[in-house]
Parts: sequence; structure tokens; C-alpha cells
Amino acid sequence: MTREVSAREFYTFAHPPERFALENGEGLGPVTVAYETYGRLNKAGDNAIVICHALTGDSHVASHGAGDTGEGWWENFVGPGRPVDTQRYFVVCANVLGGCQGATGPSSTNPATGLPYAMTFPTVTVRDMVRVQKRLLDHLGVKRLLAAIGGSMGGMQVLEWARSYPDFLEMAIPIASPARHSPQAIALGEVGRQAIMRDPKWRNGNYYPGKGPTDGLAVARMLGMITYESEAAMLTKFGRRMDVEPTVFGGSFQVERYLAYQGEKLVKRFDANSYLYLLRAMDLFDLTEGLFSLVEAVRTIKARVLVVGISSDILYPTWQQKELVEALRKAGVVAFYREVDSIYGHDAFLVEPEKMAPWIADFLGGYGKNFLAAGIWPAAGEKKEVI
Amino acid sequence: MTREVSAREFYTFAHPPERFALENGEGLGPVTVAYETYGRLNKAGDNAIVICHALTGDSHVASHGAGDTGEGWWENFVGPGRPVDTQRYFVVCANVLGGCQGATGPSSTNPATGLPYAMTFPTVTVRDMVRVQKRLLDHLGVKRLLAAIGGSMGGMQVLEWARSYPDFLEMAIPIASPARHSPQAIALGEVGRQAIMRDPKWRNGNYYPGKGPTDGLAVARMLGMITYESEAAMLTKFGRRMDVEPTVFGGSFQVERYLAYQGEKLVKRFDANSYLYLLRAMDLFDLTEGLFSLVEAVRTIKARVLVVGISSDILYPTWQQKELVEALRKAGVVAFYREVDSIYGHDAFLVEPEKMAPWIADFLGGYGKNFLAAGIWPAAGEKKEVI
Repeated sequence: MTREVSAREFYTFAHPPERFALENGEGLGPVTVAYETYGRLNKAGDNAIVICHALTGDSHVASHGAGDTGEGWWENFVGPGRPVDTQRYFVVCANVLGGCQGATGPSSTNPATGLPYAMTFPTVTVRDMVRVQKRLLDHLGVKRLLAAIGGSMGGMQVLEWARSYPDFLEMAIPIASPARHSPQAIALGEVGRQAIMRDPKWRNGNYYPGKGPTDGLAVARMLGMITYESEAAMLTKFGRRMDVEPTVFGGSFQVERYLAYQGEKLVKRFDANSYLYLLRAMDLFDLTEGLFSLVEAVRTIKARVLVVGISSDILYPTWQQKELVEALRKAGVVAFYREVDSIYGHDAFLVEPEKMAPWIADFLGGYGKNFLAAGIWPAAGEKKEVI
Repeated sequence: MTREVSAREFYTFAHPPERFALENGEGLGPVTVAYETYGRLNKAGDNAIVICHALTGDSHVASHGAGDTGEGWWENFVGPGRPVDTQRYFVVCANVLGGCQGATGPSSTNPATGLPYAMTFPTVTVRDMVRVQKRLLDHLGVKRLLAAIGGSMGGMQVLEWARSYPDFLEMAIPIASPARHSPQAIALGEVGRQAIMRDPKWRNGNYYPGKGPTDGLAVARMLGMITYESEAAMLTKFGRRMDVEPTVFGGSFQVERYLAYQGEKLVKRFDANSYLYLLRAMDLFDLTEGLFSLVEAVRTIKARVLVVGISSDILYPTWQQKELVEALRKAGVVAFYREVDSIYGHDAFLVEPEKMAPWIADFLGGYGKNFLAAGIWPAAGEKKEVI
């Protein structure tokens, strides 16, 4: 099956009486997933790359050429002649289960009641998201997945791909992601959740139709934005500059106005309940769950793995990516580490993709084997500790 | 004037028609300050030490001996035979202006209206807090202040003491404090402020009598607690342990329950408007304001300064204390740096005072001059960079 370049499409499965079995034991159906594809699937069905989006991302990873004026969130990273070259690869990017941008989530209508699921939507996990993507790839005729690539929550999906489908996936590139959500990350998520759920307009999740807890979601997003930045980035971008006379009410420093702007922007495009569900999916992400060690957890992975960390990431600091590579190597998995030297914190995977693009293009082009041949990490002369 | 050991006392000044002139140009009066003293002031009036409390702290830095069962926030640090030895020093700890624990603040009654000030209370600064303390010390008969000691917002007051009263203060010991609030710290404060002000129960600050925006304040405190911890501390204390089955609603991980507990605890004892005012005072703290450089800002300081940093502090990272010491030294001020090696983050100044106690006791005992004689920092063999 070959496909033309397309804009957003929808795939619906698990029609009654079928139910899509979730990790928590519940069933869900029907399940719709919105997705976009770039390039063509080859006859063998083995040149596909899945790109997994982060918390508030979507399937529009890049524009679709002439006539598509909407830039994607990795616009310069994916496309013809770009690092993820759509003249060579068939790229699929799908909205995540539990989200609000075309995939089934808490704002979707529950066919059993005719009302939005709201908080009756089942708890979904990163594994559930990936299993939906697998159903989609089967539908699209993908026989073997060349690579899965993603940053942040997208990187968690990449790791889940590698663990759940060892014989299907060839290369995994998780970027700025942990092998398990740390208690600090859980704590930050909980503050965002509480801001949303304590907003009276949340109404236990039953605010549809309508925007619902816009204040709570804005506060949660403001906090999120701080964790995506770094201290150095904020010093550079904002310093202590003020636009208006300071008051106790806040909003006078440039950094405050930036946060307010980001909060209002997200409220216009994102569903608060989805925010709760996706935050929770990340909290629950733990490759080691129920196992003795991370080494044991990754032992069945067959994909070659390129782990990318960001030097200034305060949300998922680089020790978390290094811990992952160490465990992969101990488990006999072919794994490499590359670190983006950036002041932009976690956000660097979105704002400075050019820094990691050469590594990723090389890794993909050589099926990860070239990195091995080059004895890549740590490369000679690099001062990073050997792990 | 000598004084007996006492419990909490009150001093009120700026009775009409006098007005206490604030940094922002407004006047306030009368001003009441609640304070506690320990030990006796000597005849020369020159053995006094001021201890400055942090954001939600109060004047009860330690208990007052037999019969006083209420432990203070630096109980083992201040008292007879303790590092700040009240057999030798006359210790004064006062509630800060703008707070809610005995000093005049937004919950106080405005004599002009007979109603609580609420948000008509003027913007107060760290300098205003210190100038209130100076009035108190004059009242108590202190002729020369031997030392000012404090952590976090308390350390900002210490630095302000050194800058505002160069001929009055002999030694300054700011702990885990910056020379100016960073944009990241301002941003974190703004999220807390927004959580409070977007709570409908805040009612533009007019919620008295009553607790007001308890949800907003709890969320703000939860965020604050994360910044007082460190990633390592949270891993050690909570890990990913859960007490109950996870749900989307949060509250199942131990770290979530810890934050919820801390939020509820603060709501019972702290006024939300005071929280807004004190956060803002910290944001506005900037020794360099209006000046060319930090070196220029500290040039008039005559006190000998011992700056203490905490290795794992994510709120005011150690580069901020090192920057301060570097500037002090360049300006010709006698200044030293000591770093507490702790996993407990910013909170270490409260939970591990024993780690810094020997330095502080030595510094006080030798009037800071012994550190100079010992050529203390960096001591031989230490690997810290010389600044």
C-alpha cells in the first residue's frame, strides 16, 4: 500500500462489540485516532517512521508542502530533504489517546450515554497510546517500523514502542525523556492538576460544552512553561526587565507577562480534562514497574537506541537519560547517548532541533549501525564519563 | 538597658500624625511589630543579634526555656550554649512587615477605615522590613548590631541590613539567598500569586473575616514546597511509592499526599494576602537596582559577611551566593563563602542547621576576623573555584 502526502486523516477502530483493551483492564470503543502522514510507504512496508508528540502537541509535526501554510511543531526537522527525509521515509504522526485534538479522549462523546466522557473516561497510559498507534500502523500497511522518534512525553512513547514491540521496531530515538517519571516531575504535575481541579469551573470535569476551568488550566500551563525553560534561558530572555510599574498583583515583570500569555494561549486550544489525563499517563510511566531493575526492564528491547539529553533540562535532567543508556548497555541493547548543549532547557527539543538533527539523520541513515562502527559514545576526545 | 528572657512582645510606632515612610513613597501608621528576644542586652548595647525569618516563618525562632514547650524554627541553633549562644548574645527576632503573625500587614485594620487593609495595603519591600527592625532595635536600646542572620527571605533582609546600615552592623550572615530575585524565582512566585488571585474566594483580597482563597493558597504552597526540596531529596523521601491505587485525580503517590498535607497545613496558619505581599517583596529584592553592577551595589557595606549556600538548592542555586561573594570581594568587603553539602535543597537551612552551625558559631565568636586570619575560603585542599 502506498499513500499520497495528506493532511489530517482519521482512523476509527474497536467498533462495538469490539472493545479496545486498556492497560488498566477496562475497555474502550470506538477509538478514533487523528493522524497525518508524510512521504510514501514503500512496497515492503518497512520505511515508516512514527513521530510521537509531547503533552500539548498534535499530529501536525510539519506542513504538507505547497498550499499548507500551517507550520508544524518540528517544521524544519521533517520534510523533503530535511533530517527526517520524507522523500525516503513514510512518516506518521498521530494524536495521542486521551488528548483533545482528534483522538478519543475525555471530551469525546461516550456512545453509551451520548454525553462527553469527562472524568468517566478510563485512565490511559503511555502503553495504551502506543498500542493505538500500532493499530493505526497495521491499518496503514506498515510491516516493520523503521524508527520511533519523540521528545518529552513523545520520548516516553518511543521507549514504550521499543519495549512493547521488540520485533517490529528497528530504531528508537527518545529525546529529553526519562525511563520513569521522577517524584519531582509527579509533584509538579500534581500542582498543575490541583490548580485545575480546585477551579470551581472544573465542576468535577463536567463543564462541556464550554472551556471549563480556564484559570486552573492557565496556572497549570504557566508552571509547565517554567519547567520547560531553564534558569539561564530566563535570565537571557527576560532578566529582571519590567514593562510596567510593579504592583503586588504581579504581571509587571516581562517573565510574568510571558507566562500569562502562554497560559491564555493554551486555554484557547486545549481541554483541561485531557491535560489531567495526559499528565497522569506521564506520572504512571515507569519502565521498571513491577520489575527489579531498569536493566531487567529493557532486556527484551531489540531496537537500536539513540538517547538524546539536553544539558539544561530541569524537568528530565540528563542523569535520567544517562541512567537509561547505562541500563540499555548493561542489558546488551545497542544504545548511544548524545547531549544537546543548550541553555533553553527541556524546550530545546522544540526550539533547537538543528542541534540534534545531524545525529538523528546519521543514525537513521545508517540504521544505527554506523554509530556502533564509529564506537560513538563517548567519542574519542569527549570528556563525558563512560557509562 | 538590659532585658529579661521573654515571650512574644509588641512594639508600635508611627502613631498619628507620624507616618512610617515606605520605600515606594507611601506612608503607613501606626506600625506594630511582634518580636521575641533571647538573652540580655549588655550595658554597651552592642551584643545584639537579629535573626530574620523566611517567607512563612515568625518571631519564634526558638523556645524560651523551662515552661515554653513550643519549639522554634531554629530550635537547636539558638539558645543557651547553642551556636547562637543566648548566654552571650541578645537575640531579637521580629515578624516582618506585611506578614500576618503579629506585624502590621494586609490583614491588619486600617485605622482610617476601620476595615482590614486587604489590597489597599501598600507594597512593602525587604528594605521596609529592615527599617522596621531598626526602629525596634532603637527602641530596645541596641547601639550597635553585632550580627544579622537569616535564610531565604531572611537572608535578603540580612543583605539589606548590611547595605542600609553600614555603620550599625558588624557581621552579616545571609544563608541560601540571592543578591537579586532571578526571573525563574519571580516566575515561580507569579504562578503562586495567580493560583491565589484566580481563586474566586480571593474576592480581590476582600475576604476578611474568613480564610479566603484556601485552594489557591494551598496550590501556591504546594509549588513552594517543591522549590524548597531537591530532586534527590524527593527520590529519597518518596520515590515513586504509592499509598493508594492511582487515579487521574492525583493524590495517590506519597509525594502528592505530602504536598497536599503541606498545603492544608499552611492554609490554617497563614493569610493569603500576606503571601502575595511577601512574595512580591522578594521579587522586588535587587541589590543592584538602578546601579551599574553588583560590585557597585555592595561597595558601601562595612560588615564582614559570611555567605552560606546549599549545594542542592534549586530555588536560589549556589552560583547566586558565589556571585554575591565575588562581588563583595571585588568591592573590598571582607566576605567568605561556605557551602552546606546536602540533598535537602533550599530547606536544608531549616532541617540541617547543624551543618552550618560550626561555621556560624566560629564566625560570630571571632567577629569574622578569625576567618580572615585563617585565609579561609577556599581552604587549602578544597576544590572549589576561587572567587
